[in-house]
Amino acid sequence: MILTEAALAGLIAEALARHGMSARNAVLVAAVVAAAERDGAASHGLLRMPGYIATLKSGWVDGTAEPVVERPAPAIVMVDARNGFAQVAHAAAREAGLAAVREAGMAAICIRDSHHFAALWPDVEPFAEQGLVALTVVNTRSRIVVWGGKRKVLGTNPMAFACPRADAPPFVWDQASSLRAQGEVLLARTEGHRVPEGVGLDAAGKPTTDPAAILDGGALLPFGGHKGAGIAFMIEVLAAALTGGRFGFQDESAKFPGAQTSNAGQFLLLIDPARSAGDAFAGRVSALVAALREAGSERLPGEARQRRREQALRDGIVVPDAAYQRLLAMTQEATG
Amino acid sequence: MILTEAALAGLIAEALARHGMSARNAVLVAAVVAAAERDGAASHGLLRMPGYIATLKSGWVDGTAEPVVERPAPAIVMVDARNGFAQVAHAAAREAGLAAVREAGMAAICIRDSHHFAALWPDVEPFAEQGLVALTVVNTRSRIVVWGGKRKVLGTNPMAFACPRADAPPFVWDQASSLRAQGEVLLARTEGHRVPEGVGLDAAGKPTTDPAAILDGGALLPFGGHKGAGIAFMIEVLAAALTGGRFGFQDESAKFPGAQTSNAGQFLLLIDPARSAGDAFAGRVSALVAALREAGSERLPGEARQRRREQALRDGIVVPDAAYQRLLAMTQEATG
Repeated sequence: MILTEAALAGLIAEALARHGMSARNAVLVAAVVAAAERDGAASHGLLRMPGYIATLKSGWVDGTAEPVVERPAPAIVMVDARNGFAQVAHAAAREAGLAAVREAGMAAICIRDSHHFAALWPDVEPFAEQGLVALTVVNTRSRIVVWGGKRKVLGTNPMAFACPRADAPPFVWDQASSLRAQGEVLLARTEGHRVPEGVGLDAAGKPTTDPAAILDGGALLPFGGHKGAGIAFMIEVLAAALTGGRFGFQDESAKFPGAQTSNAGQFLLLIDPARSAGDAFAGRVSALVAALREAGSERLPGEARQRRREQALRDGIVVPDAAYQRLLAMTQEATG
Repeated sequence: MILTEAALAGLIAEALARHGMSARNAVLVAAVVAAAERDGAASHGLLRMPGYIATLKSGWVDGTAEPVVERPAPAIVMVDARNGFAQVAHAAAREAGLAAVREAGMAAICIRDSHHFAALWPDVEPFAEQGLVALTVVNTRSRIVVWGGKRKVLGTNPMAFACPRADAPPFVWDQASSLRAQGEVLLARTEGHRVPEGVGLDAAGKPTTDPAAILDGGALLPFGGHKGAGIAFMIEVLAAALTGGRFGFQDESAKFPGAQTSNAGQFLLLIDPARSAGDAFAGRVSALVAALREAGSERLPGEARQRRREQALRDGIVVPDAAYQRLLAMTQEATG
């Protein structure tokens, strides 16, 4: 099947609404799932739908949540996501965040009691398209072991950064604090192959290349050793302690069979470069990227996604028949 | 010799003033050199003095610079360091930065045309001692190759983070974006041993473990592969493009024989957790650190430094005789 982004998003929203989301919230979450599929980011596209639905069915997340937004200081926007999905909180906070950054030159959106199950770049890219620098961090349930520890405490804690360029779409990257994503280890177990050294530990805290040992009571390791651990720690502080969100080790999803998301927090920093660097900013970012290309850097983040996006917008999004049939079934199945 | 921190800082300031720094600026730079020596951070202590003096003699840095501070937006403080050392710019901006964060809940200090040759944690730790979260990034002259490139463009671009705790001094970390510091590679060459794989490339862009090949036209690699590269890129954008500072590849220190510093920029983010998380913040950071300890993490960043500091404050700072004599000579030598 070849679908437009709007048609695909519509079906996804229908499936989510069928399983307990309010129509408005379903549209907001569906938009990021469809965008991931459009950009060829398969791990965060339709593959996630069973996880969304299982989590909704478990009662762990509130698909009808209505976030509460406050602005306790000129540069600070606080959002209580009310146990809903993060995308709903972002939509609720967007106007206040933009007002704050335009007025103060910089602003933070601090989200608590939220569930983030999507790719992270959709949270920053739209701000960069409006000329802002955006950095966001999310904590997740405990998954990684750091600084010589034996058991996991910090989450895979992803981070995404976006900044405008003068001559091209925003420069955007998005990365987890773990060396490999949990999903990659799941895939290795399913396919019956080992993972590289450095990816994880077994339940006794010993290095292993056996994906089952990592998943059954073991843990992932951070990227870049103790330095990646420093990043993961900072993310836990900014996304949870600063927002009032739960730490990864306070997650209670295990009490809700089927739940696949973490109830945690998110910190989003917005900076208006016009208030510091002036008009020169976007041109300078372009010059930096040009210097990297000239030095031979050919694997710039976001470029493959950008190419796939352009193709999808031109030719439509190719959805394999089996995936399309599964999606249709989700829009119709009984929700008992 | 055993010296108090004040006595050591006094001698260092005298040596810097002898080589062209204004008395006031010399005191500000001397404080961070003495603090590094106090904390046992030898690589940023007295070992750096020949580099400071050679750079001052070269005419590349202005030891008498008087920074200019502006506040173009409620949450933005801009500092033109006027080609002086970053520590002088920090002192000049401190009051405006604190006023901005108290008023707006968050603030950024953006420094351009500055030279940072010291450890980075002294730039964030004092803010955390006042209850603020502080994150800073500095760019440096080109030193690392990223994203499959052949030549260096980004700098070693360090980052430091500090946040208050309820039951202990602030939690502080400080790390470069390169896997290993340039100084470690210099030491390996001097001592005649190889460096581990992944540390650097030779002039042809090929992996090597020969420190001389890395130093003679080669380059360092980022920590954590493409993810560390993402961090280094973000730092280049925040520290240079956003502040109006030079990119690493625009550095002109080579025109000033003897110059060892980079003329670049620095971005410092301050957040007042009282305006978002309220009084709970410091206690929650303590709970997070306690959870990490309970999980077996024994190598938390900053702890060894904290122990050495306590010992130095109690017993004085031990300076080997040869280093002491060299320092005395710096306070007296002709400055031709």
